Amino acid sequence: MVEASSFKGRDVVSMLDFNREEIDFILDKASEMKPLAERGSDLLKGRILATLFFEPSTRTRLSFEAAMHRLGGGVIGFAQPGVSSIAKGESFEDTIRTVENYADVIVVRHPEEDSAVRAAKVAEIPVINAGSGPWEHPTQALLDLHTIREAKGRIDGLNIALVGDLLYGRTVHSLAFALANYDVKLYLVSPPQLKMRRDVLEKVEGRLNYVETGDLKSILPELDVLYVTRVQRERFPRPEDYEAVKDAYRIDREMLRDAREDLIVMHPLPRVTEIATDVDETPHAWYFRQVRHGLYVRMALLALVLGAL
Amino acid sequence: MVEASSFKGRDVVSMLDFNREEIDFILDKASEMKPLAERGSDLLKGRILATLFFEPSTRTRLSFEAAMHRLGGGVIGFAQPGVSSIAKGESFEDTIRTVENYADVIVVRHPEEDSAVRAAKVAEIPVINAGSGPWEHPTQALLDLHTIREAKGRIDGLNIALVGDLLYGRTVHSLAFALANYDVKLYLVSPPQLKMRRDVLEKVEGRLNYVETGDLKSILPELDVLYVTRVQRERFPRPEDYEAVKDAYRIDREMLRDAREDLIVMHPLPRVTEIATDVDETPHAWYFRQVRHGLYVRMALLALVLGAL
Amino acid sequence: MVEASSFKGRDVVSMLDFNREEIDFILDKASEMKPLAERGSDLLKGRILATLFFEPSTRTRLSFEAAMHRLGGGVIGFAQPGVSSIAKGESFEDTIRTVENYADVIVVRHPEEDSAVRAAKVAEIPVINAGSGPWEHPTQALLDLHTIREAKGRIDGLNIALVGDLLYGRTVHSLAFALANYDVKLYLVSPPQLKMRRDVLEKVEGRLNYVETGDLKSILPELDVLYVTRVQRERFPRPEDYEAVKDAYRIDREMLRDAREDLIVMHPLPRVTEIATDVDETPHAWYFRQVRHGLYVRMALLALVLGAL
Repeated sequence: MVEASSFKGRDVVSMLDFNREEIDFILDKASEMKPLAERGSDLLKGRILATLFFEPSTRTRLSFEAAMHRLGGGVIGFAQPGVSSIAKGESFEDTIRTVENYADVIVVRHPEEDSAVRAAKVAEIPVINAGSGPWEHPTQALLDLHTIREAKGRIDGLNIALVGDLLYGRTVHSLAFALANYDVKLYLVSPPQLKMRRDVLEKVEGRLNYVETGDLKSILPELDVLYVTRVQRERFPRPEDYEAVKDAYRIDREMLRDAREDLIVMHPLPRVTEIATDVDETPHAWYFRQVRHGLYVRMALLALVLGAL
Repeated sequence: MVEASSFKGRDVVSMLDFNREEIDFILDKASEMKPLAERGSDLLKGRILATLFFEPSTRTRLSFEAAMHRLGGGVIGFAQPGVSSIAKGESFEDTIRTVENYADVIVVRHPEEDSAVRAAKVAEIPVINAGSGPWEHPTQALLDLHTIREAKGRIDGLNIALVGDLLYGRTVHSLAFALANYDVKLYLVSPPQLKMRRDVLEKVEGRLNYVETGDLKSILPELDVLYVTRVQRERFPRPEDYEAVKDAYRIDREMLRDAREDLIVMHPLPRVTEIATDVDETPHAWYFRQVRHGLYVRMALLALVLGAL
Repeated sequence: MVEASSFKGRDVVSMLDFNREEIDFILDKASEMKPLAERGSDLLKGRILATLFFEPSTRTRLSFEAAMHRLGGGVIGFAQPGVSSIAKGESFEDTIRTVENYADVIVVRHPEEDSAVRAAKVAEIPVINAGSGPWEHPTQALLDLHTIREAKGRIDGLNIALVGDLLYGRTVHSLAFALANYDVKLYLVSPPQLKMRRDVLEKVEGRLNYVETGDLKSILPELDVLYVTRVQRERFPRPEDYEAVKDAYRIDREMLRDAREDLIVMHPLPRVTEIATDVDETPHAWYFRQVRHGLYVRMALLALVLGAL
């Protein structure tokens, strides 16, 4: 049986490091955080979170900082590498070894895929991966699961589509790893140039029931969850390829007429044009509510790795 | 009669939204904040302020953050848009809808005139306007009034001059709206190119007793309050026009010989050359003391809109 | 006898302003901070630190912010000048006079040598110098002394070498001033282009027992403390001069074979190549542990100047 104490001091680097029992435990603890997210608490009073963002972020950084404040703790850090000693030529490892002297837990976002692993290796305090290049974003996957569970009451038995850029999108990689622990049918919907990374699929081979397709329209009526991601123009050498793809996966109210009434549309945000704003006011729209679940999940993670639960 | 509870959940977007009774009430509450500004309090413990600055600021951002800390609350946010998801193409509305999941109140500065209105429209939590392009800066107007009341014991019956850039200066727009609630004589002193915006005057037509002039020297002896603003070089296509204006409205000790002994000189800051440093040590100089009143007023506003008073 | 109350309201601008008794007192108080650095405290609850960094920094800024949080206080400030009103042409003095209205203590880093002195002159609240151009960095010197005392049990009687850029390195200037209060033998080891600044030596003439040399290898066996600093490429007009120097003062495990077994290697960090990473795991390496002492020393200084001890 999983116990809170088993998370104390632990790193949160990859969704692959957590089994189903542990994931469910984290999600349960996240639900318990809801009242504390409303009124605050002293659970982590006197403790310090360091947020080291080597890439810009609104959502993830503010979410972790809010989580720490709601638990009564303090926050230090930087929002971009220009204000850090990296600019003076310091190695990433040296920065981590320095900062761990000031904080009790480190949250790091970095453009390199192995950054979180490297940080966890040198740091004696817990490290939480807030985005390791195009590779993983495990806390996003946990908040995605928490949102699905809230909306649907369960994760098992659902038909879930991940749509958009499955090659470079770190959130869908972590989500695929997480969903491999559940009994779901997963549709991987993307243009051929942006199909799900092969090494992601290899790591969950035999554990994940998935179908790859480029045709969203034909599977839409079967879906319980439609998880949309941003397709970036820069991924396409030829502008016309981008234009074609952009339209093929753009979700609007018209298109959702073919969907189940209780389909939920999710998005890790920021969105640009891939979900029309006319969807925002429909009951399908869960992408803003989803943000709130990030707060719960991150509060739970901080409290767990700091041994406060 | 105005009650504290009527401010709970309210947005602070424009000075036009507040009547005299409400303004006086806020100023009274600001005065009550003085002891808390010295020693701190737990009034907003567990609550979170999000400061979203899409334009740089020292004074206003730090003032709000200090106000929140003095009340025992936490702060998240960004000091410039480069570190936010705006850089990834996210709409302003989406950013607001995201951040409101993490915070209890949002303070926003943005270069567009309708930004604060738009933020208040989408956010369910209170939004405080910390500068909406060249249009308004209501919390500055409130701190200006609080300073005047402290220095003069009253606002009614005073002769007040607003000097400098009345076209693009957001602080003087909000101050004109606020002063329309009081029995003052207002001199609007500017070069012809930077006269008070017509739509500002239209909104207070018949309620504000004002005179427009380009001649500061002739009215100076009558003034109780001289409110100076910065004239920016960029506003003038021809450099010689700027040089002429710059000198015409530059306040120094020599010039103040013609002023009343109890004239107070105010400035929203930052100042560049429009007030000579030889004025700093005279009893006329109120522009640094004025800063402190920003703390009181913002503490009062945060406590009011969060329903803590 | 030194008493805590004598530090209340005091500025920390230069190591030259503190005598041995005062330095020892600060170091004692820093040691007392260790348990509070683990579990936090309410010693500075309700108080606010403003960190004004006109030059980027990871270590010093985060260290002060962590120190303030561990003592229960709040932090406001900026990490780079671009987000402040300096960009609008505000004078440094005006920025200080503004910020002192929001905070109880100011920590300032600025590229100009007289910045901290100027800030302390205009501010009525205490100012702590976190690096004044290439001139001084007194809190670094204090943490260096605290580290030496922890490692060696004393400062008197030690053989200490300062190695690298002694001309532009502010940390070695403050450290030389501090060590002039103790009975040490100081080796000043540098290439001829980067010898210790003459005005630093003049200020401690007759009080400091020192030898200037360019030859690290010959004195290495005698050393108790080897304090290494970064030599920046930009200091050398001719690239080949830099390359020669870089190698001459590069510390690695091989070179340390000639050192005493209990030699400690220190560095203000960030390091680039001047200490090889193969030294990190030896018992000589104290440069990461040294970071932790910055937290203790800054906690003590904040508590002392705010009169909380």
